[in-house]
Formats: sequence, structure tokens, C-alpha cells
Amino acid sequence: MNQKLGRASIRLEQPVYIIESASIVGTKEGEGPLGLLFDRVGKEDMFGCKTWEEAESTLQKEAVGLALDKAALKPEDISYVFAGDLLGQSMATSFGISTYQVPLFGVYGACSTCGESLTLGAMSIAGGFADKVVCVTSSHFASAEKEFRFPLDYGNQRPLSATWTVTGSGAFVLGGEKGKSGKKARARISAMTVGKVVDYGLKDSMNMGACMAPAAASTVEQHFIDFASQPEDYDKIITGDLGKVGQRVLIDLLRKKGYDISEQHMDCGLEIFDAQSQDTHAGGSGCGCSAVTLSAYILKQLQEGNWKKVLFLPTGALLSKTSFNEGMSVPGIAHGVVIETI
Amino acid sequence: MNQKLGRASIRLEQPVYIIESASIVGTKEGEGPLGLLFDRVGKEDMFGCKTWEEAESTLQKEAVGLALDKAALKPEDISYVFAGDLLGQSMATSFGISTYQVPLFGVYGACSTCGESLTLGAMSIAGGFADKVVCVTSSHFASAEKEFRFPLDYGNQRPLSATWTVTGSGAFVLGGEKGKSGKKARARISAMTVGKVVDYGLKDSMNMGACMAPAAASTVEQHFIDFASQPEDYDKIITGDLGKVGQRVLIDLLRKKGYDISEQHMDCGLEIFDAQSQDTHAGGSGCGCSAVTLSAYILKQLQEGNWKKVLFLPTGALLSKTSFNEGMSVPGIAHGVVIETI
Repeated sequence: MNQKLGRASIRLEQPVYIIESASIVGTKEGEGPLGLLFDRVGKEDMFGCKTWEEAESTLQKEAVGLALDKAALKPEDISYVFAGDLLGQSMATSFGISTYQVPLFGVYGACSTCGESLTLGAMSIAGGFADKVVCVTSSHFASAEKEFRFPLDYGNQRPLSATWTVTGSGAFVLGGEKGKSGKKARARISAMTVGKVVDYGLKDSMNMGACMAPAAASTVEQHFIDFASQPEDYDKIITGDLGKVGQRVLIDLLRKKGYDISEQHMDCGLEIFDAQSQDTHAGGSGCGCSAVTLSAYILKQLQEGNWKKVLFLPTGALLSKTSFNEGMSVPGIAHGVVIETI
Repeated sequence: MNQKLGRASIRLEQPVYIIESASIVGTKEGEGPLGLLFDRVGKEDMFGCKTWEEAESTLQKEAVGLALDKAALKPEDISYVFAGDLLGQSMATSFGISTYQVPLFGVYGACSTCGESLTLGAMSIAGGFADKVVCVTSSHFASAEKEFRFPLDYGNQRPLSATWTVTGSGAFVLGGEKGKSGKKARARISAMTVGKVVDYGLKDSMNMGACMAPAAASTVEQHFIDFASQPEDYDKIITGDLGKVGQRVLIDLLRKKGYDISEQHMDCGLEIFDAQSQDTHAGGSGCGCSAVTLSAYILKQLQEGNWKKVLFLPTGALLSKTSFNEGMSVPGIAHGVVIETI
């Protein structure tokens, strides 16, 4: 029953299936290159709420509701929810998920949280602790700006290395069964590599790509070692939100370790916006960025057979307004999940 | 291999052992009724650091280091760390745990995080995903006051229902083996009940006991249902930090459900301080409160055979400064872990 592999990895003996998923995004994301693929695009970014935080809670609530609907499941069918967001004390999750009255594991790994929630969710099913679980994460441009960069009304210029927090939430229903009566699951999770905190001492919160790239490189390298695999074994190696700058750093760092992933690498933050026309600089970011891209775009490619196997690797920058103001560095973390066609 | 039980519970087929543990606290906790039981008491509450946040990180770092030392283990022997704290974006964890370079699962459940981390840690071992893991949580009076109640220098009176955030961190090494050559594990985890968010609409952040009690009642009731058990089946039913007010609410709520736990109930927040002489009002609270009490006091009672089986139930109040200032309620959550003598 030992499903542990190498230093930081898990190989699932029985695959865990992503039965269904849902994505809901804000207006700007709806206007981006992936706009037509999302399940729901908000008409305005308050989503009918009074505060940005409530709006983000609504994103999580609706993403979970939609994923359950698509899977023809009720909240009672779900053993646990694994959920998180970027707000202090994960408030979007607490208020967003409470509606469903499902036992909750709150998780936090900054923008890597989607990978962490899928990892723990898959473990809970593969270990026989749950029948079906939901994994959900969210971010909201305005609540994130308020959380990390308040006061907002400075009117200061954003450097070109800065990323744009995605307004969106992606929810995933996981289960041990491939599906029934013509309704097949979207994909399967076959393995995971858990990230550690990597701190290169960088302090520029306006260049989170560079802060997170060393963590991504560490997890990718550990993954290759643990599975004795090579970049060519994956159709895509997909980071969460490294953006333009972080992508370059990641590819360079891994080249020094003897791995060339330049062919396979893709970054959700670079896919979700058209940086040029949408003025998003280095790319998209946030807990929602990788989650909605996985649901709307990556799983679609796997389902259509365009890709067979990807390493999905959400990346997180571990900072708070307090740690930043106190002059601390911005460490990174990245959790890898191998997702394959069924 | 189905270890799922009822709506929200897990019965471990193979017990998971708490191999070792460690507790480190601040000066005030050292002067309290449990003072002599803690492994380490700080000489001053900055623990040699420049900021309160760094001090809290140091607490986590030292608690983990001490637990590993006591277990004669190195960081390389640990598959994963499950860790969390109360600060925005879990900063005490990010900076406290990075030293060890162990793959990290960040978790958040407010002051219930100790229960959540033990639950996930035990699942990772029982599922064959890990050899040994460390679960650690922390809180610090000053970093919590700054996080939740800044500006601090108001000089306003604290109501009698308010609790006092514990400065401390408790770390637990879990593994699948009972121990070897005369060195027995401290106790074993046999079951868990995962809590859901329960919101009675209370908004008083100075009465967190009342805010959390409905969540504690919900998890205890679910536990009794899932295991078809009764209060008498446990030597103690131990909540994390309900304090005086919350304790009364919990006992009343459960009485209405047909369960009388008044004989078995104990609250870590009521044990850690002498409210009268230490001016802590309703009791202690915080992520560290239940963790250090478990390590120093509860496991000792189990080891000495005074108790055979307890339901350990850390309780969390899900609020942030933003949610509070925006007039939101304070929902609660509580995760239950059954801990038994070996």
C-alpha cells in the first residue's frame, strides 16, 4: 500500500478521476484569449455583492455549485471540500463554502493552493477516506489588491514584471470512479510531487514570477528525480502564474540542472490574458488563475486527446502585507500534479 | 480499504502514532497552571527576534526542531509538514518551516488548525503516502493582536467574554510504528471527525467562545452519530479554546441534542491560564493553545494511563480584520481527533 515515491512524491495505485469541473471568471478574463472556454463570465466584477470579498466568496460558491450540477451531484454526495484563497484568514473560502455544509479542510499555499487542494483531495480518495471530494480555489483582482497593496488609489505605475490577479474560481469534483453510462470523467490524477518553501531572498513583490521560479524549479527537478522521468515524458509542463519573467528564470534554472523544458513549458498566467492588448504586463496570477485555466483549457486539451499527460504545477508567492512591510523576502512554493487522459 | 465512516468521519484501520511532540510557550503561559509541563518557556516574548511575526516563526521552528530531537529524527526523515497559524497568508509557517526544507502542506482552520493538521497528517500516513510527518501550529499574543485588533494602543477595556491569545507552538511527529527499543510513542490516533463551517450569525469578535461553540457542538454530535458512541465512551472531550462562555454554550447546545458532556468536557483555554490571577478573562485561545496543551498535558495524561481515550477538538473562529470591519458574522469550525493510550 506504499504509495510514497522518492523524497516528495506520491504515485497513486488507483487513479483518482476529475469527474467534473467548473470555471467562473470576471469581465477582463472573459475578454482574454480563453474567454469563450469559461463556463461563466460575470457581467460585472462585484457579482451582485456589496464588497470585493463577498464577490470572491460568491465566485467560490458558484464554481462549486456549477461543478456539482455538471456532475449531477448534491452537496451531500461530497465527503470533503478542500478549499483556499489569498485573503487573510482565507475569508473567501469560509463564507463561500459554508452554504454547502460539507466538512471543510482549509488549505493555504498562496497561488499554489489549487495544486495543494488537488493533492490532498486525491490522497483522501486514494486512501479510502472519502468517496467524492471537491477542490476549489479563487482569487479576485480587487480583493487581492486591497489585501496586498492597500491603499490602492496611489495611481503609481506598475512595473513590467508585475502580474495581474485573475478574478475567478475553479472547482473540481474528484472521485475514484471513471464515470458511468456515457458520462466519462474529464481526466485522471496519477501522481503528485509536494513542494517545499524555497527562498532565494528576493524581496520584490512586484516581481513575483522571479520569486516563485526557484520553487517551481525545485519541484520540477524533484519530480523528475522521484519518477526518473524527463521533460519529454510530458506533453506539457504547466506552471500556475510565473508570467514572462518567471518563465525565463524557471527555464534557465532547470537548464543548469540538466533539464530543458523550453519545449514543454506553458504558464497559465501567460495564457489567460493577452498581455499586449490587455495591459497585464508579465501575465495573470492568483489562486484562481491556474484553477480556471485547468478547468477550461487544460482539461479540454486532455479530454480531446491533444495532450496525453501534463505536469500541472501551481506556483505560490509566500508574502503578506505585514511580511513585505517588515522587509522580509518573498519565498515561493509549488505543488505538482500529474494529470492524464483517461 | 474504506476508512470512511458516516457523514464526516474516518476510522483508521491501522492506528497512527504520535511518536513524539514538543511545546514551547511564552512567559505568561509559563506562569500559568501548566507552566512546569511545557518543554521550553521563553525568557521574553520576542524570542530574540525583531518583530512579533518573526518571534512566532521562531516558535514553530523551535517546536519542530525539539520534537525531531526528542524523536531522534532528522528533517530528511520527515515526508511532509502540515502547518498553519493565524497570521494573514500564514506567514509564521512560511518563514518558520522553510529552514527544514521538508515538503509543506499549509493548512488553515483558524484555531482549529491543530486538529486539521493532525487529521491530514494521520490520513497521509494511514493511506501509505508518507512515512513520518510533522504537524505544527502556533499563535502569538502580540502578532495576533496586531493581526486582528490593530491599532493596539487604544487602552480600551476587554470584555469578560474575551479570550487571551496563547503565545506558543506545539509540534507532533506522526508515524505508523509504535516505536522501538524501549522508546514507545506517546499515544495513537484512531479516528477523526472533520468539521464544517457553522454560522449562527454572531458578530462579536470579543466573544469568540460563543461564536465557535455551535461548530464544536456540530462536530461532537456528528462524531457521536458516525461512531454510534456516547459521552461516556471518552474519558475527556477536550475543546481547544471555547473558554468559560463557549463551554456553557456547548454543553447547553449538546444537551438539547440529547447528549450530556458536562462530566467529560474540558477546554484547553480554561486549563492554560488561571483566569483570576492572570487576568485572562474567559480563557486562552489561539492556534497554539490547543497544540501546547495537547503536547504538554493531554498526551501526558494518556501516557500515564490516567485517561484511555479522549476526543480532542480544536475550535476555530473564522474571522479576519476585513470580514469583521465589513460587518460579517464570525462562523466557527471544529475538527475532532480521537487519541488513545497505546
